[in-house]
Amino acid sequence: MTEQQPKFITVEGGEGAGKSTNVGIIKACLDDAGIAYLHTREPGGTPLAEEIRALLLTKREEPVAADTELLMAFAARAQHIAQVIRPALARGQWVLCDRFTDATFAYQGSGRGIPNDKIAQLETMVQQGLQPDLTLLFDLPVEIGMERARQRGALDRFESEQIAFFERVRRGYLERARQHPQRFHILDASQGLESVAQQVRQLMTQLLGC
Amino acid sequence: MTEQQPKFITVEGGEGAGKSTNVGIIKACLDDAGIAYLHTREPGGTPLAEEIRALLLTKREEPVAADTELLMAFAARAQHIAQVIRPALARGQWVLCDRFTDATFAYQGSGRGIPNDKIAQLETMVQQGLQPDLTLLFDLPVEIGMERARQRGALDRFESEQIAFFERVRRGYLERARQHPQRFHILDASQGLESVAQQVRQLMTQLLGC
Repeated sequence: MTEQQPKFITVEGGEGAGKSTNVGIIKACLDDAGIAYLHTREPGGTPLAEEIRALLLTKREEPVAADTELLMAFAARAQHIAQVIRPALARGQWVLCDRFTDATFAYQGSGRGIPNDKIAQLETMVQQGLQPDLTLLFDLPVEIGMERARQRGALDRFESEQIAFFERVRRGYLERARQHPQRFHILDASQGLESVAQQVRQLMTQLLGC
Repeated sequence: MTEQQPKFITVEGGEGAGKSTNVGIIKACLDDAGIAYLHTREPGGTPLAEEIRALLLTKREEPVAADTELLMAFAARAQHIAQVIRPALARGQWVLCDRFTDATFAYQGSGRGIPNDKIAQLETMVQQGLQPDLTLLFDLPVEIGMERARQRGALDRFESEQIAFFERVRRGYLERARQHPQRFHILDASQGLESVAQQVRQLMTQLLGC
């Protein structure tokens, strides 16, 4: 048993960047170290938050206002934090979360053009200081990611956006990483899978202090 | 045809206060005056906002965090304002809305205990200065309102709250009316229907300037 404070790890990146595969590697590292953890995702992570996720991802004729999208993302997050993330950390479990607030800065901020200070206002309101201890950003040229996402089948409301949107999302993520260098680790997801996996294992070893 | 700026009228009040009946009277006054108007409601008023409303009202085992409820209400409102309220006012239609942000101050603020300044922060963010021109508050002792609501059948997640919650909501509404005396008109909904209706007609006559 590792006797350290439970950590909050988030995994970020655009479409087709290999998040799922590498989440599997992170989980294997935690299992090997005998660490109790909870794997969850955003938007979502509770029954109500998953219902909000479904509303967010559904393609619809009605144009969705940028503020609506932003507030729905933070409504789901407030529920996820209150019901899942804080209780898990409080009972000593680590939390591994597929996307978190950095995704909101990338998608709704850079992607949709919502000013960062508006998002930061909601971040402060909802998170009250809660921040990830480690964020793995799987970075990939947009064309490669979109091609991979297309191969996976039907596209949701976000995946159906144009290439310029995903270029802005990518830049948003990289900007956010520059602003928070201590917790962010950028991984070049255009490399071979095994090379990326090896770097993920190294990061986890450092974090686990083993 | 009345050649004045289109007005934004909201109708507020707890359960069973006779909002629906009096909305009918307001509509008759507008019709008589030949004024083009749109009748809508919150939470809701667009297909997506109505889906958010359904999530808000559904009774569920999962406890709903106060911040989640607040952010869902404002997500629906952002959509309603962008898609319905501002476009209607811009094309010269009056807007008659069953509940608006005063309800958020009453239900999520006073009812759930969310600080007013947090709600005001979201109000500023989402409304950017948009405020009702006239707000009719149908005020009623809580016991009478709850009895009327119960007689209407199955209760939603809010209607199922305890009496102390509705006492706080009522006080929240009255406090909000004191803070905004210029646009608020409090109607004593415990009076006979015809007496209340008469006061509503008088207010509309003043507003219509006829």
